[in-house]
Amino acid sequence: MTESTALSLAGVFPPIPTPFTLEGEVAFDQLHSNLERWNAQPLSGYVVGGSNGEFVSLTHEERIKVVQEARQAIPKERLLIAGSGTHSTRQTITLTEQMAQAGADAAIVVTPSYYRGRMTPAAFENHYSQLAENSPLPIILYNVPANTAVDLPLESISKLAQKPQVVGIKESGGSVTKIGAMVHRTPDYFQVLAGSAGFMLGALSVGAVGVVAALANIAAESLVALHERFQQGDIGAARDLQLSLIEINTTVTVRFGVAGLKAAMDFLGYYGGPVRSPLLPLEEEEKEVLREILVRAALL
Amino acid sequence: MTESTALSLAGVFPPIPTPFTLEGEVAFDQLHSNLERWNAQPLSGYVVGGSNGEFVSLTHEERIKVVQEARQAIPKERLLIAGSGTHSTRQTITLTEQMAQAGADAAIVVTPSYYRGRMTPAAFENHYSQLAENSPLPIILYNVPANTAVDLPLESISKLAQKPQVVGIKESGGSVTKIGAMVHRTPDYFQVLAGSAGFMLGALSVGAVGVVAALANIAAESLVALHERFQQGDIGAARDLQLSLIEINTTVTVRFGVAGLKAAMDFLGYYGGPVRSPLLPLEEEEKEVLREILVRAALL
Amino acid sequence: MTESTALSLAGVFPPIPTPFTLEGEVAFDQLHSNLERWNAQPLSGYVVGGSNGEFVSLTHEERIKVVQEARQAIPKERLLIAGSGTHSTRQTITLTEQMAQAGADAAIVVTPSYYRGRMTPAAFENHYSQLAENSPLPIILYNVPANTAVDLPLESISKLAQKPQVVGIKESGGSVTKIGAMVHRTPDYFQVLAGSAGFMLGALSVGAVGVVAALANIAAESLVALHERFQQGDIGAARDLQLSLIEINTTVTVRFGVAGLKAAMDFLGYYGGPVRSPLLPLEEEEKEVLREILVRAALL
Amino acid sequence: MTESTALSLAGVFPPIPTPFTLEGEVAFDQLHSNLERWNAQPLSGYVVGGSNGEFVSLTHEERIKVVQEARQAIPKERLLIAGSGTHSTRQTITLTEQMAQAGADAAIVVTPSYYRGRMTPAAFENHYSQLAENSPLPIILYNVPANTAVDLPLESISKLAQKPQVVGIKESGGSVTKIGAMVHRTPDYFQVLAGSAGFMLGALSVGAVGVVAALANIAAESLVALHERFQQGDIGAARDLQLSLIEINTTVTVRFGVAGLKAAMDFLGYYGGPVRSPLLPLEEEEKEVLREILVRAALL
Repeated sequence: MTESTALSLAGVFPPIPTPFTLEGEVAFDQLHSNLERWNAQPLSGYVVGGSNGEFVSLTHEERIKVVQEARQAIPKERLLIAGSGTHSTRQTITLTEQMAQAGADAAIVVTPSYYRGRMTPAAFENHYSQLAENSPLPIILYNVPANTAVDLPLESISKLAQKPQVVGIKESGGSVTKIGAMVHRTPDYFQVLAGSAGFMLGALSVGAVGVVAALANIAAESLVALHERFQQGDIGAARDLQLSLIEINTTVTVRFGVAGLKAAMDFLGYYGGPVRSPLLPLEEEEKEVLREILVRAALL
Repeated sequence: MTESTALSLAGVFPPIPTPFTLEGEVAFDQLHSNLERWNAQPLSGYVVGGSNGEFVSLTHEERIKVVQEARQAIPKERLLIAGSGTHSTRQTITLTEQMAQAGADAAIVVTPSYYRGRMTPAAFENHYSQLAENSPLPIILYNVPANTAVDLPLESISKLAQKPQVVGIKESGGSVTKIGAMVHRTPDYFQVLAGSAGFMLGALSVGAVGVVAALANIAAESLVALHERFQQGDIGAARDLQLSLIEINTTVTVRFGVAGLKAAMDFLGYYGGPVRSPLLPLEEEEKEVLREILVRAALL
Repeated sequence: MTESTALSLAGVFPPIPTPFTLEGEVAFDQLHSNLERWNAQPLSGYVVGGSNGEFVSLTHEERIKVVQEARQAIPKERLLIAGSGTHSTRQTITLTEQMAQAGADAAIVVTPSYYRGRMTPAAFENHYSQLAENSPLPIILYNVPANTAVDLPLESISKLAQKPQVVGIKESGGSVTKIGAMVHRTPDYFQVLAGSAGFMLGALSVGAVGVVAALANIAAESLVALHERFQQGDIGAARDLQLSLIEINTTVTVRFGVAGLKAAMDFLGYYGGPVRSPLLPLEEEEKEVLREILVRAALL
Repeated sequence: MTESTALSLAGVFPPIPTPFTLEGEVAFDQLHSNLERWNAQPLSGYVVGGSNGEFVSLTHEERIKVVQEARQAIPKERLLIAGSGTHSTRQTITLTEQMAQAGADAAIVVTPSYYRGRMTPAAFENHYSQLAENSPLPIILYNVPANTAVDLPLESISKLAQKPQVVGIKESGGSVTKIGAMVHRTPDYFQVLAGSAGFMLGALSVGAVGVVAALANIAAESLVALHERFQQGDIGAARDLQLSLIEINTTVTVRFGVAGLKAAMDFLGYYGGPVRSPLLPLEEEEKEVLREILVRAALL
C-alpha cells in the first residue's frame, strides 16, 4: 500500500451535503453545481456521503451513485473520500469495494454502533481489521459519538493505525486530550483530522493535520486561512479566526444540524434544499436566527 | 383499520435470531427447523428481523427474504411481526410495504437515531405519522435506548397512539414508571409489550399485555407460565417465576447479547450458529459460564 | 443486632422536607405542625434529612437538630429514619452516631459520589462496611442516580446485605429488573424500598416491601391504599391507583423537585415555605400548572 | 474591585493534595514540607482544598485550617486559591468569608450539583451571583463534570463574567470548543484556566492563560516549560512537551485519581500518604504500573 501512505490529508475538507429535489430525489445537477463552486476554493478534497451527506437516508444504490456523480465534478488532484460505513462488516466491505469502483480515493468508515453494549475494543478492532484486509481503498476511521453513542477507544486506534491501509481518523469527539494521545501513539503516516471547526485550532496544536468540518461548506476561506496561519506559526491570527468561527459553527453543526447547513447554503447561493425525514426543515424563526448569525459572521 | 384494532398482542413473543451458516449466509433451513420447534410451544407469535435477528447486519433483500421464509413456517393463527425500521422515513415506508407483501401481520419499527441531537419529539412524531399514513400493516413502535441511545418520549407515544394504525409499542427501556404512564395516557386498543423478560412482571402489573423477550427463544414455558399466573391473580407464583428468570435473562440479553442467545440455543438443541461481525462469538470460558447458568436455571 | 432484624420497613414513608422561614432559617415549629398532621395518617414512619429534606443545604449541626426536633413530634411506634450520608466515610460514621443520639431508629445513607470515576464496587463496599461495623443504628443503603450520577451495583448490594446492620435499601433508580434481582439475591431480612411513587407497584410486584416517596407527603392515603390493595391481591385496584398517581408524581418529583413539593404542601395546608438556594422557588406560572395537576389528581 | 481585576491567573497552579497521617488526621507538618519544595519551582500559586485536596472528605473546620496552615508556607507573591464550594449557597458564602480570613487570595468555587435535574442556568447564575455580591474574595468558577455530573453552561459563564468579582474559571470539561467560546464571549479581565494538563496546549491555543493541573504537583517544570514555549510562539516544542505528558497525566488523574497522585508523590520524595475513604489506596500492582510510567516519563 505504498499509495495509501502517500495520501496526504492535510488541509480542509467539507463533508458535503447530498442535495435533494423538492420531491425528495437526489438532485445530481445541484450536486455538480455546488461542487463547481467549491472547486474554486482552496480545499484539499471532499467527504461525500458522510453524516452531513445524510448517508443513513440514502439507499445503498444512492450512496454509490452520489459518489460516482461527485467524482465527475471533482478534479483528480482533489481527494474524494467516500463514506462507506454500515452497521455490518460484510456490507461495509462490499460498499467500500463499490466506492473504489465509483472513483473514491479513500473511504471514511463510521464505527458500527447498534449493538453498543457489545462494541468492545475487540469488536471494533475485528471490524476494521477485516475491512482493512479486504479494502482496495485507504481507510479513514470515523469516530462521532454525538451520532453513534459509542467512542472508538484510543487503544483500538493505536492498534489499527499499525495497518498500512488505515491511514487516518476523523475524530469528532472533541477531546484534544484524546487527539494528542492518538497523535503520540500512532505512526507518522497515520493522520488525524479534526471532525469539526469548533476545535480545529486545538486539534492542530497537538498534531492534527487537517479538518473535516461542515462549516467548510460555507466558510472555506476562513478555515483554510486558519490552517495557513497555524502552519506559519502565527498563533495569534489563528486564534482570532478560530474564535470568530465558534458561534456560527455551533449554530450550523450542533444547534441546527444538516437542515441548518442546507439552509445556510441556500442563503449563500449554493443549493441546500430540503432534508430527508426523519430530519425536519428549520422553522421560519430558526432560519431568521441563522440568517442573523451568518451576517454577524460576515458570511452573508 | 378494523383489523388492526382487532390484533391482540397479549402473551409471549420471541424475537427470533436469524440463523447463519458457518460461511455467514442466512441458513433458511435452520430458520424453518427452529420455528417448527417453537410452534410446539404456547407462544402468541414471533418478532422476525428485530434486534435479536441482527437486522442491521442483513441487507434490505435479506430482511425481506427472512420474513418470507419465516411466514412459510409460522401458522396463520400466530402473529408474524416483522422488523421494518431504518434510519430513513422513506426506506422504512418502502420496507414496511415489502414486509406486508412478504406475509407479515404487523411491523415493529425501531426509532431512527443517527441524528440523535435532532431527534426531537416533533421529528419522531413526523416519522411515525408518515409511516402510519402509508403503511398497509399495523405499526408497533419500538423503543430500545440501550441500542439507539434515544428515548421515544411519552408525549410522542401518547400522540401517536391516537392513530388507529399504531397499535402498540415494544418498550425496552425498562422504566415501569414510563410504562404505567403510557398505559394511562393511551387508548385501550393501544397495547404495551415489555421489551425484556427482566421487567416483565413489573410491566404487567401496570398494564402491559405481553412481552417480547429474547429469553422466550429458550424459556418460553416459564414466560408463558408467568403470564398466566399473573392473569390468574397469583402474584406470589408470578413473582417466584420472575425472580428465577432474572439472572439467566441478564446473562443472555445484557451480558452476552445475541451471541449469548445463539450459544444458549446451540446448548438447547436449536440451531444458534454464528453471529455476523461486528458481533463477536463467545469465548470458550464465556460459553462455560453460560452453560452453568443454564443449568442453574434448570433449562439445561 | 436482633433489634435491627426486627425492624420492619413495610409500608409508606414520606421523606419530609425541611421547612425554612422566609429568612431561610429552619422553622422548627412548622416541622412540628407538619408532623402532627402526618401523624394522623397511616404512615409507617418518616425519612428525615433526606434528598427532599435538602440535607445538602443544611449544616452538620442543622442536620442533627432537625432529627432531634422531629423525634419530639414522632411517636415511638413510628420509625424515624435519619439521613446521615456524606461524601466521606469518617464524617458519615460520626453523623450516624450523632443521629442515634438524636433519636433516630435507623440511618439512610446515600452513596458517596464526588469521585465518581473511582467509586468502584470495592470503594462502595468498603465505605458501607466501615459504616456498618461502627454504626449504632441499622443502616439503609440509599441509591439515587438522578442526584448522585453513580449507581450502587447489584453485586455490592448483595454483599453488603450479608451484614446484619444493613437492613435494607431505598432504590430510587427505577429499574424493577434490578429491584427483582436484589430481592432474589439478598437474605429475607434485607428489605427493599421503592424510592418513588412512580414505580411503587412495579417494585412491590417483585418483592419490595414499601416505598419512600415524596408524594407520600401530600397523598399518603392513596399510597397506603395502593399498598393495601396490593397486599390483598387486588392487582386491578392497585393498578388503577398507581396509574392515577403517575402524573402528579412526575410533576412533583421530576419536573419541579423539592420546590414543587413545598409549593404543593402550601396549597394543601401544610407549611411548605421557601427552598434554600441553589434551589429556586417555582415561577408563578409553574405554580398554576402544579395547582391544576393537584386538582386533576383530586388532591386539591 | 480594582484589586481583583489585577489578579493574574497566568501560569501553572498545582491543586495540592491534603496530606493525612496514617491515622487519617491532617498532617500539617507534611503540608508545610511539601509546600517548601513546591516553592522552589516556578509556579504561579496553589489551589488549596480542591478536588485533589479531597475537600469533600474534610470537615468545614479542616477546610479552613488547611488554608490557614498553607498560607504560612506560601509566600505573599504566590496566589493561594482556596476551594470554598459546597452544595449550598449559604454555606458557600460563609466558607468563602472564612477563607478570606484564613489568608486566601481568591476562592475557587465548584458548581453545586446534588439537585442535578434542577440545576438550570438560572439556578447556577443565582448561586454564583449571590456569592459574588457577598464575597470578600475574587471568585474563580469551577466546572468539573467528571465529578459533579453537571456542566456549567456557556451562557451562564458569559453572564457571570460580567461581574467584576468573577475573575475567571477553571474549566475541567476538556472541550476546547467551549473554552474558545468562553474566551470569545467574556471580557478581557476574565481569565480561563485549563483544568487538566491533558488539554493544556489546546486550551492555551484558544486563549486560556494557565492551568490548574494535578500533574503540576509532580511535573511542574515540564508544565511551566510548555507554557513558556507556547508564549514564545514555539508551538513545535510546546507540542512535544504536551504529547510527552499525556500518558502520565491520564494515569495520575483519570485512571488512578487522588490515590495515584499521592502514590506518585511518595515515589518522588514528597509526602503523599494515605487517602481518606471512600477513596481507596492503590493496589501493589497498580503502584508498580505507576512507577513504570513515572520512569517512562523521566520523572523518576
